[in-house]
Amino acid sequence: MSRSPGRKQENHKISRELFVLTYGALVAQLCKDYEKDEDVNTCLDRMGYSIGVRLIDDFLARSAVKKCRSYSETADMIAQVAFKTYLGVTPSVSCSSAAGNEFSLILDKNPLVDFVEELPAERASLCYCNLLCGVIRGALEMVHLAAEVTFLQDRLKGDAVTEIGITFLRKPEDRKHKRN
Amino acid sequence: MSRSPGRKQENHKISRELFVLTYGALVAQLCKDYEKDEDVNTCLDRMGYSIGVRLIDDFLARSAVKKCRSYSETADMIAQVAFKTYLGVTPSVSCSSAAGNEFSLILDKNPLVDFVEELPAERASLCYCNLLCGVIRGALEMVHLAAEVTFLQDRLKGDAVTEIGITFLRKPEDRKHKRN
Repeated sequence: MSRSPGRKQENHKISRELFVLTYGALVAQLCKDYEKDEDVNTCLDRMGYSIGVRLIDDFLARSAVKKCRSYSETADMIAQVAFKTYLGVTPSVSCSSAAGNEFSLILDKNPLVDFVEELPAERASLCYCNLLCGVIRGALEMVHLAAEVTFLQDRLKGDAVTEIGITFLRKPEDRKHKRN
Repeated sequence: MSRSPGRKQENHKISRELFVLTYGALVAQLCKDYEKDEDVNTCLDRMGYSIGVRLIDDFLARSAVKKCRSYSETADMIAQVAFKTYLGVTPSVSCSSAAGNEFSLILDKNPLVDFVEELPAERASLCYCNLLCGVIRGALEMVHLAAEVTFLQDRLKGDAVTEIGITFLRKPEDRKHKRN
C-alpha cells in the first residue's frame, strides 16, 4: 500500500490496550502451536525480527534521527525514542561491559504484560515479550549493526525489573550491507 | 496485574505501526496453522471476542461514557469513541435497516492493513481484519447487547471501502446477564 509523504505525522497514536491484548493472543496461539517454550521464544524472536526490519523505515522517517556515532548513542536512541514512540515507555539504559558494546534496557514496568497475571507453571521458560528482542535485532540489522538481544531479567518470572540485554557484535564499519 | 486508579489517563498512547505489524504476524501465523480461510476467520473472530470481553472494562473506565439509550447511540459510540481511541480512526456510521438494528461502520482507510499490499491469491476468502468483528461482538456482549458483526466490504478484496456490519439481535432488556 503506498503511503503519501505527509501522512506519517498524522493520526498515528492509538491506545496501548488493544495492542497488548492482541499480542497476548499471538503468544497464546504460539503456545498452542509449540509444546516447547524454546520454540515459542524462537518463533517470537523471528516474528519480531521481520517486524523490526520493516519498522525501521517508519522509525527513521518519523523521528528524523541523526546517525548514531556510538553504541551508547544507539542504545539511548532505542530507549528514549523507539521505546517511547512504539510502546509509550522509556527504559533506563546502562552499559554493562568495559568494552562498551553491552547495554541493558531496564523497564520498571513492562507495558506488554499489562493484562498478564503470571506465566502458567508449565510455561516457566517462556520469554513472553521475546518479540521485542527480535524487533530490536531486526531494526539494528537494517542500520548495519549486528546484535544479540535477549531478556536478562523478567518481572513475569519474579525478577525485580525487566531487563533486555543488547550486545553489539561488530563495529558498524565491518559490514556495509544489510542481510535478510 | 493490579492497576492503580490514576494510571488510566497517563502514558497510554503508542504508535500504531508496531501494532499493525504485530497483527500481521498473528494473521500470518494463523494462515500457517489453518489451511482454510474460514478457519482463520473463525479463529480471528474468536480471539477478538476474548479481547473485546476484556477491553470493554478499559473502555468504560477510560471514557466514562454514559449508557447508550439506543442502538444508534451505541453504533456512534463504537465509531466515534472506541475506534478513535483504539485504532486512531473514526468510521462513518449508517443505519441500514428500517427496524433500526442494523448499522454499517464505513472506513475509507483501514489502519490495520497499512503494511498489507493485497491478499495472496490462495487466501481470497480471508477476512484479514476479522479480529475487529470479534472485539466489537465481545465488548457488546459485556454490556448485554448481542450482535452479529461481519465484514460486508473490504478494500483488501477490491471493494471501494471497508464496511463492518453490526446487527443487534435483541433488545438490551431481554438479557440481564453476561455470557462468556
